[in-house]
Amino acid sequence: MAPSALADIYPIPARHKTKATTIQASVLHGPRDLRLETRTITDPAPHELQVSIKATGICGSDCSYYNKFCNGDLRACHPLSLGHESAGVVVALGEAVTGFQIGDRVALEVGVPCDNCRSCQRGRYNLCPSMRFRSSAKSVPHFQGTLQERVNHPAKWCYKIPAHVSLESAALLEPLSVAIHACRRATIEQGDTVVVFGAGTVGLLVAAMAKVSGAVTVAIADLDAGRVNYALTNGFADKGYIVSQGREPTEVQDKLAFAKEISVDISEIAGLHDADYEGADLTFDCTGKEICMQAGLYATRPGGQLVMVGMGTPIQTLPMSAAHLREIDIIGIFRYANTYPIGMKMLASGTLPSLDKMITHRFRGLAAAKEAFDIATNTADKDGNLVLKVVIEL
Amino acid sequence: MAPSALADIYPIPARHKTKATTIQASVLHGPRDLRLETRTITDPAPHELQVSIKATGICGSDCSYYNKFCNGDLRACHPLSLGHESAGVVVALGEAVTGFQIGDRVALEVGVPCDNCRSCQRGRYNLCPSMRFRSSAKSVPHFQGTLQERVNHPAKWCYKIPAHVSLESAALLEPLSVAIHACRRATIEQGDTVVVFGAGTVGLLVAAMAKVSGAVTVAIADLDAGRVNYALTNGFADKGYIVSQGREPTEVQDKLAFAKEISVDISEIAGLHDADYEGADLTFDCTGKEICMQAGLYATRPGGQLVMVGMGTPIQTLPMSAAHLREIDIIGIFRYANTYPIGMKMLASGTLPSLDKMITHRFRGLAAAKEAFDIATNTADKDGNLVLKVVIEL
Amino acid sequence: MAPSALADIYPIPARHKTKATTIQASVLHGPRDLRLETRTITDPAPHELQVSIKATGICGSDCSYYNKFCNGDLRACHPLSLGHESAGVVVALGEAVTGFQIGDRVALEVGVPCDNCRSCQRGRYNLCPSMRFRSSAKSVPHFQGTLQERVNHPAKWCYKIPAHVSLESAALLEPLSVAIHACRRATIEQGDTVVVFGAGTVGLLVAAMAKVSGAVTVAIADLDAGRVNYALTNGFADKGYIVSQGREPTEVQDKLAFAKEISVDISEIAGLHDADYEGADLTFDCTGKEICMQAGLYATRPGGQLVMVGMGTPIQTLPMSAAHLREIDIIGIFRYANTYPIGMKMLASGTLPSLDKMITHRFRGLAAAKEAFDIATNTADKDGNLVLKVVIEL
Amino acid sequence: MAPSALADIYPIPARHKTKATTIQASVLHGPRDLRLETRTITDPAPHELQVSIKATGICGSDCSYYNKFCNGDLRACHPLSLGHESAGVVVALGEAVTGFQIGDRVALEVGVPCDNCRSCQRGRYNLCPSMRFRSSAKSVPHFQGTLQERVNHPAKWCYKIPAHVSLESAALLEPLSVAIHACRRATIEQGDTVVVFGAGTVGLLVAAMAKVSGAVTVAIADLDAGRVNYALTNGFADKGYIVSQGREPTEVQDKLAFAKEISVDISEIAGLHDADYEGADLTFDCTGKEICMQAGLYATRPGGQLVMVGMGTPIQTLPMSAAHLREIDIIGIFRYANTYPIGMKMLASGTLPSLDKMITHRFRGLAAAKEAFDIATNTADKDGNLVLKVVIEL
Repeated sequence: MAPSALADIYPIPARHKTKATTIQASVLHGPRDLRLETRTITDPAPHELQVSIKATGICGSDCSYYNKFCNGDLRACHPLSLGHESAGVVVALGEAVTGFQIGDRVALEVGVPCDNCRSCQRGRYNLCPSMRFRSSAKSVPHFQGTLQERVNHPAKWCYKIPAHVSLESAALLEPLSVAIHACRRATIEQGDTVVVFGAGTVGLLVAAMAKVSGAVTVAIADLDAGRVNYALTNGFADKGYIVSQGREPTEVQDKLAFAKEISVDISEIAGLHDADYEGADLTFDCTGKEICMQAGLYATRPGGQLVMVGMGTPIQTLPMSAAHLREIDIIGIFRYANTYPIGMKMLASGTLPSLDKMITHRFRGLAAAKEAFDIATNTADKDGNLVLKVVIEL
Repeated sequence: MAPSALADIYPIPARHKTKATTIQASVLHGPRDLRLETRTITDPAPHELQVSIKATGICGSDCSYYNKFCNGDLRACHPLSLGHESAGVVVALGEAVTGFQIGDRVALEVGVPCDNCRSCQRGRYNLCPSMRFRSSAKSVPHFQGTLQERVNHPAKWCYKIPAHVSLESAALLEPLSVAIHACRRATIEQGDTVVVFGAGTVGLLVAAMAKVSGAVTVAIADLDAGRVNYALTNGFADKGYIVSQGREPTEVQDKLAFAKEISVDISEIAGLHDADYEGADLTFDCTGKEICMQAGLYATRPGGQLVMVGMGTPIQTLPMSAAHLREIDIIGIFRYANTYPIGMKMLASGTLPSLDKMITHRFRGLAAAKEAFDIATNTADKDGNLVLKVVIEL
Repeated sequence: MAPSALADIYPIPARHKTKATTIQASVLHGPRDLRLETRTITDPAPHELQVSIKATGICGSDCSYYNKFCNGDLRACHPLSLGHESAGVVVALGEAVTGFQIGDRVALEVGVPCDNCRSCQRGRYNLCPSMRFRSSAKSVPHFQGTLQERVNHPAKWCYKIPAHVSLESAALLEPLSVAIHACRRATIEQGDTVVVFGAGTVGLLVAAMAKVSGAVTVAIADLDAGRVNYALTNGFADKGYIVSQGREPTEVQDKLAFAKEISVDISEIAGLHDADYEGADLTFDCTGKEICMQAGLYATRPGGQLVMVGMGTPIQTLPMSAAHLREIDIIGIFRYANTYPIGMKMLASGTLPSLDKMITHRFRGLAAAKEAFDIATNTADKDGNLVLKVVIEL
Repeated sequence: MAPSALADIYPIPARHKTKATTIQASVLHGPRDLRLETRTITDPAPHELQVSIKATGICGSDCSYYNKFCNGDLRACHPLSLGHESAGVVVALGEAVTGFQIGDRVALEVGVPCDNCRSCQRGRYNLCPSMRFRSSAKSVPHFQGTLQERVNHPAKWCYKIPAHVSLESAALLEPLSVAIHACRRATIEQGDTVVVFGAGTVGLLVAAMAKVSGAVTVAIADLDAGRVNYALTNGFADKGYIVSQGREPTEVQDKLAFAKEISVDISEIAGLHDADYEGADLTFDCTGKEICMQAGLYATRPGGQLVMVGMGTPIQTLPMSAAHLREIDIIGIFRYANTYPIGMKMLASGTLPSLDKMITHRFRGLAAAKEAFDIATNTADKDGNLVLKVVIEL
């Protein structure tokens, strides 16, 4: 298919069609069918910046599309560039843009809401029903991801990066945003004990964010010993717990018994097993797994909160009486809103553990995308090294 | 069994054992084995009032004990007087009591927390792990209910009733407290649309409380047409919906499909099906049924709240992604705290629909308790009249 | 001055300059120098509606400009049409507008924020530093008010009026919005006792809104007996208190003594003088007067809130220890955000006292504006009738 | 005066009068009239511990009583032992006490509320009108402070100290509690910029607590360069500002102009003077001085909070329009509630800067109390060393 034809399929608004130039893009056409292609890009619209993408982190949802051409219920219906954890350099300015200049290094908030609905008006734009989010198949035509040489993006959703913050750290503002949003929606109080299920990028960042939000003890749990160890040795968590693998009960009562064991174990590790044992003040599930939600309900103290961060099993069988009789609130988290300026301040101030260091694997050039996805799909590379965040740099 | 022996079994503290007199009590010894017995009562302890019970409402949990000698997981292990919705007249004062005098009409808050734990210290005494609650089998020995002629009760948990409020209305402060607590834990905003599942006493009171807390439209749903009709004709709700009976899917997908239908129907009735349809701002489940929790998750708008009021199925299979992706918070409600003074003010001010009128059946004397429980177990009496609240008066 | 010259002074964007037609406008050129003039209006911009104004309420700030050509610190620097409580009928649609059609009756939210700053992003657009607000001299050139035959206004800030709500009621959504915002920023709890200082339009609406937000007793205070009486006889408040006139202490200690007396009196009237006297749960000052803020601090219970609604004395001498030692929070209120849809629902549902009835004086045509302002400046007309809201209809 | 006579004057309940033994106490009889005396102490009441006091920090209010025999409006009316920042060792147990044993090291929460009023019931016991607070002249007879060899104190208000936390650090839980309470009542969000006025013990602890509660930049201001320097070099604050001394305007407009200058200066130091300058997210006044409250109102961003921590000028003249038009909430802070367990966890975890290190001067024995007060009254000792916290050890 010729580039110009592709431009018709992908959502490039008509007004852009003058002065088009060509760029390289990494485009997914089906499961594991990733192609390096040439696309056209026009000049930025009046309120847009044209950004030369320099770093894109690979996220679990990217891997899901890469492997299955779908993500949960969302099935891609035409070619899709992946990538939504991104930073780059401004190369052109729309005519109405103020406050930016060519050469500015920027992080991209890649979800573009309508600015007009009830949710947008009230500052919860992550709930906007018309949200277009890069690299997601939800809006049709799909809003293309950042694994392209350049994209035009609304200046409103671009954030200047301070001089001493790296572009690849800035790309990780996206998962950091999830962590900020989760810890802000939750009610963390000074002195709290927090349990986090899942020690992937988001789990680690939630743990770190809980710690700087007043929590005194943060315990993290994962199936993968390498990740738990990483959390402990890099200042993301105070206590770690490795969930025993291989045990996968199928009956509800067995699952709940297993979940209860996990909750008891992690409570012990979190130092909650004294006479006044009541459980964790807050539990964050960053796995989306039913067993973790079950364990989370048992692990949380009366009056505490269970925060659903990780996307996962859509239908779950849960011991709801554990929430009901103990007034545990279950808090839903979907992406983020109003987090980028905060995340940038936190990055710039150095109060968080290093994000650069979380990048365990770097690839250069869009041609390396396939290799990058193959690594990112696993928790260890072929040399047995821990895989946390994989970044593609241009 | 002789009265003095009973006194040893039931939790009557040693310090009371002087100057004991005898009273009549309705005591449950097993499923449907309700007996009228003589018990001893001592003088009130220093901080207690002795209250001559005048009115006790019968609650669903009372009926459960009456029929099965247990309530959910709680199994009675020795004789138990039922009754926890109660009001009476002060007949004796402990020596350290101030602010009360003999003849005062009082409502009893029958849960007595420890006043010492984290939850008590922070004003959430309903979560006190040492809570003793009359007529419940949780604390052992069981804290006896109010279907007795007189009880000694801490003055701190007795509330004076204004002259123009009836004793039987005051007894209903207990279920009203549940409604106040639920509407206060939830975040009701001016103009909100509220859906309530369940039109029993608590559901009706939650609906009424939501209405005076700023909600503009309150829609109520129940299987029982009589209850829905009662809600509409007595000012408890603006819109009513009768859930079709007889349809009881067993497969998860069928249940969810049915739940989705219910949610669509009630949203339509609540006037939410215009172009901007997003769902109810808040949904209160006052049934404890899994199907209602499922329907509640579908019926609530993004960013809204689903409030679990009714106790019920302990383990539920729920479409959690509907909560997660739409940031619906699930709020657990267990009894109440700091509600009696508020409920009393609301009763006295006449801002709520009549509570007296909710009392559809009255019985006089403890000897009538068995008959009262037989009625209270059903939603209609033998003449086909609606059964809402059954009160035993002394 | 010729119409075309006026168009250059007033903020009519360049892009509108094609297809201009002429309209009548009531324009203030200096203190009490109100002129009926001809202006040009262009076709609406792509996202605007052209609205034929049908009803405009006169507000205190309008009267201030009318009498002094300034409002507090804001001094008008060129001709200014007044009016910001407005409703009308759509007569033309910008090309990008959806969801409206010609003939739609709409209420206008006349403040237009930038949609781009931190405050806008977070849903507190009332704090937008770039806010342009019709009839205010803050933005230069001034954003002209609605005492004009027609205005072009962003469709986003227009709200359709249900069939059974009058245009003049809809115009009063503006002061109602202040009341909604104040009661939402405050934390009103079921059963609360509320004191309102000031029984003008905003004070009355705050009282009514507090009542439907859960307050059980609302006491209102004003210097003017007619207004207090109006509040009581029309369902806006439960208790009324007339502040004694003529007493105007100048020394701080005398002022505070007077304030304390007022606070004691109104507490007594609100029924707060029993043994447990602690004060009102919330106090709303809708006067902006220092004496009311002082009395408010004394009248509020420990842990309560004093809500500053009315604009007034910029520098105030307050007994801050009364707030400090008793943990009273002082809440600032400036205009409103996200209130129009709520206000419209409340109007449509009939839960509030009649807004139509609050309109004590109606004038027809822009030529009557001067007469309208002369009435609106007083609390009684020349026949001694109460003046509450004066509306100019076209 | 004989010891037995003293026992009649001081509030030692009758039930204690058996088995009295004698202790030494430092007792204030008038301004700077501090005497070392012998008192009687009885066995602890059933729910009390007898604690041998080991460390007592001296607070500003202690110095006020010491120098003037009064503190603000509170005037002592009979001999008063000072001291309320205290820790010690359990030497005797009341018969009903559980969970403690002789030899336990404990921190004392010296305010004893009634446990019965609305405020106590709701967890805001710091607002209890019947609160008795050691070393304060508010309750009559005065509740004696901890500058005594031993005191009997309710076990409920004693907290065990972990092995690795020093007794003198534990004594500082009292001012730390103020900081926790202030930061919890305020709404600190991840990434916030915080300004603190006053770098005494409480100001320093508020700054440190804000930092671990999510604030990214904390700027502290004080008249004393030594204190500001201490804050910066010991990790309490990121930025420091020394308010110029000697300038004491008397006219309101001059004061406000000075306050505005201070607010601009500190905003610049806090890094808030970029294009988007709006002010600090939160400002804590820990001085109680009018000029700082004025500067605080100017320094806070729209929608932010000004938190009144320091007690001071009871009547203040403030630019309230700065709060009103910008929706700044003014939050009153009085002591603390439910903070000791949190403070203990934070101390034990080592997340805060060292409290031991804040103790610049130590004195041994009650006989040294006079010398200790003379030092504590100043900000530098006679050698020019910084005076922060003075502790008397036994």
